[in-house]
Amino acid sequence: MKVIVINSGSSSIKYQLIDMPANIVLCSGMIDRIGLEISNLTYVTQTTKVEEALTIRDHKVGLEKIASLLMDEEIGVIKSTDEIEAVGHRVVHGGGSFSKTVIITEEVKVKIKQLFELAPLHNPANLEGIIVASTIFNQAKQVAVFDTAFHQTIPVIAHKYALPNYLLTENKIRLYGFHGTSHKYVSENAIHYLTQNSFSKDSKIITIHLGNGCSMTAIKNGKSVDHTLGFGPMNGLIMGTRSGDVDQSIIFYLVNTLGYSLEAVNTMLQKQSGMLGLTGYSDLRDIEANAENGNVDCQLALAMNAYRIKKYIGSYVAVLDGLDAIIFTAGIGENSSYIRKLVCTDMSYFGIELDEAKNELRSKEIREINTIDSKTKILVIPTNEEIEIANQVFELLMK
Amino acid sequence: MKVIVINSGSSSIKYQLIDMPANIVLCSGMIDRIGLEISNLTYVTQTTKVEEALTIRDHKVGLEKIASLLMDEEIGVIKSTDEIEAVGHRVVHGGGSFSKTVIITEEVKVKIKQLFELAPLHNPANLEGIIVASTIFNQAKQVAVFDTAFHQTIPVIAHKYALPNYLLTENKIRLYGFHGTSHKYVSENAIHYLTQNSFSKDSKIITIHLGNGCSMTAIKNGKSVDHTLGFGPMNGLIMGTRSGDVDQSIIFYLVNTLGYSLEAVNTMLQKQSGMLGLTGYSDLRDIEANAENGNVDCQLALAMNAYRIKKYIGSYVAVLDGLDAIIFTAGIGENSSYIRKLVCTDMSYFGIELDEAKNELRSKEIREINTIDSKTKILVIPTNEEIEIANQVFELLMK
Repeated sequence: MKVIVINSGSSSIKYQLIDMPANIVLCSGMIDRIGLEISNLTYVTQTTKVEEALTIRDHKVGLEKIASLLMDEEIGVIKSTDEIEAVGHRVVHGGGSFSKTVIITEEVKVKIKQLFELAPLHNPANLEGIIVASTIFNQAKQVAVFDTAFHQTIPVIAHKYALPNYLLTENKIRLYGFHGTSHKYVSENAIHYLTQNSFSKDSKIITIHLGNGCSMTAIKNGKSVDHTLGFGPMNGLIMGTRSGDVDQSIIFYLVNTLGYSLEAVNTMLQKQSGMLGLTGYSDLRDIEANAENGNVDCQLALAMNAYRIKKYIGSYVAVLDGLDAIIFTAGIGENSSYIRKLVCTDMSYFGIELDEAKNELRSKEIREINTIDSKTKILVIPTNEEIEIANQVFELLMK
Repeated sequence: MKVIVINSGSSSIKYQLIDMPANIVLCSGMIDRIGLEISNLTYVTQTTKVEEALTIRDHKVGLEKIASLLMDEEIGVIKSTDEIEAVGHRVVHGGGSFSKTVIITEEVKVKIKQLFELAPLHNPANLEGIIVASTIFNQAKQVAVFDTAFHQTIPVIAHKYALPNYLLTENKIRLYGFHGTSHKYVSENAIHYLTQNSFSKDSKIITIHLGNGCSMTAIKNGKSVDHTLGFGPMNGLIMGTRSGDVDQSIIFYLVNTLGYSLEAVNTMLQKQSGMLGLTGYSDLRDIEANAENGNVDCQLALAMNAYRIKKYIGSYVAVLDGLDAIIFTAGIGENSSYIRKLVCTDMSYFGIELDEAKNELRSKEIREINTIDSKTKILVIPTNEEIEIANQVFELLMK
């Protein structure tokens, strides 16, 4: 079964065509800057790589261009769009309506639209991708995979805020959580790995997703039970440009005493804070290089970043009343031995003992980087949200 | 040495006259509703209790009234204000300027005034108390004891937010922490208790102050190293009417999407949230009684309250990389066996094992409520901020 996975953003489309259940990526790529004068398109197969600068007026033109490349006589990978049996759409916000992957019906589209308010930057673009794909891949089943779905198992004790009750019942203000596709993918891989290494299936694990966005999930017996991102995608861990947790009284102080506009504060917390605000750099590789050269701001920012992860590890051990493994994933989690080492230092109380040599090894495979005696496993597991979406689409359609 | 401890609020004065170093409270009381038509005054000695309703125009009139009661021929405890050697003033915000108790000079008053912006509800009233007391007890040394001082040892990794650097360097936005006098008092008592019970002096303890305001402190070798309240006194734990931690994106959603004014959101987070928002009650005794009668909102609110405390315990174990004792204090911490039990349930990973019978005993003394086998001590220690202030004043003046 050929499944095309589409991640449609406000001015971009990312895509992968995957042959299931073998998980073979037939091609992948993206178009950015949709609607601007010049867009960049990439199209990568096992034998070809195309990069093109061109004008893409809207998502429909963009997806038509992708479809024509897929069927291109020379560099294409299919003869007809009819070969694609399903389109898996990443949808950021499923609110309280979607706790699992669903086939997209008119009713589903209406619900995704009702959630625009909760994810104004993402859900409209996701729905646009669905509408356009339905016309271009009109023989295929359209399936929605929600970033929030994995976190729908978080119990009320953890997803409710200590606010007036009507904000939950009427306004649906609660912790939703994000990066669910990634946390689900790596936690399933981790549990598979642990059970093969004589751990019980009733596992207590913490997944640490460190990429552009960063989040952690407490997972008990395979289910998300708590998570660092909440109602929106800006609190919890320190991110590239997002502050993560801040004392909310700072917001009122910035507006009421220092005279900032609320909009300026929002922009600051989302785009000028985090590692960028602390160091002047948002790319972790630059920050690590400067830290190693003695830049004190960079050293402190990395230490703060790790300190917050450590605190959440402790807090999730309390939630789980135990710990079998912590798992690092996503760009930074998979590649930064520096951050992993900071996180795993002075954590012996939690049975976390890093093997420094193993920590330095680079690999695309799942790997264990704790010492042999470490009571808690420390795993690095590459995430793959596209494969996870294709898997979920395949499983749903094969039922 | 007779020390009068004064806690001057915007419309109230609380006071205690204490004979030091014996810690004998000669009298105590308060005046509330200063400036309103009718104020209530209380004056309590070891033999007398006066309650009076009268008009108190301002803090000066209030403190003069207190002074005249202190010297009253029948119910007074001193002959002349000259007998009072020192006035200990509680000052809420010492900012980054004060890391310890100081004798109040003109320079100190200027600095307290510079901190009005950081504590607009408290510091102006505290300074008013200082100015008035300086005229009425003009022979006495005026001493300021800061609520934030104990937390000045919190390292930058924990007191800095992941915001643009200039907010710390120029605008002094950082974690300051509060209830420092209480955390200092109970932690010193705890460490004294632990060393008498063959614990090392290098202790790792967590103090849990649950009163009108609620906060927790991670304390290593007697020093505050992290704390749940931050720049202002509204985040961290769930309080009577304050939300504690919330995802800051909710603030922007309430204003931008639901049309709340920012002022209304601030009021909601401070006065309509926390236990009140979740249950309709702000007094914990009402909430516990209703929970025991099957009220689901009350049961959930108590569980959420305890859940957050548990998470901070875990997080501070990570900060300390170990745990010798947790200490409950203040009105709720000292009296609610219900909350203590919820907090200590399913915390065996941290060596926390509650003795349920001991937990139910009521006492005004320091007491241990863990099982004999519990690796971590669970202590209940009554706080006494007035005695702590008097102690600090005494120690400073005897140097």
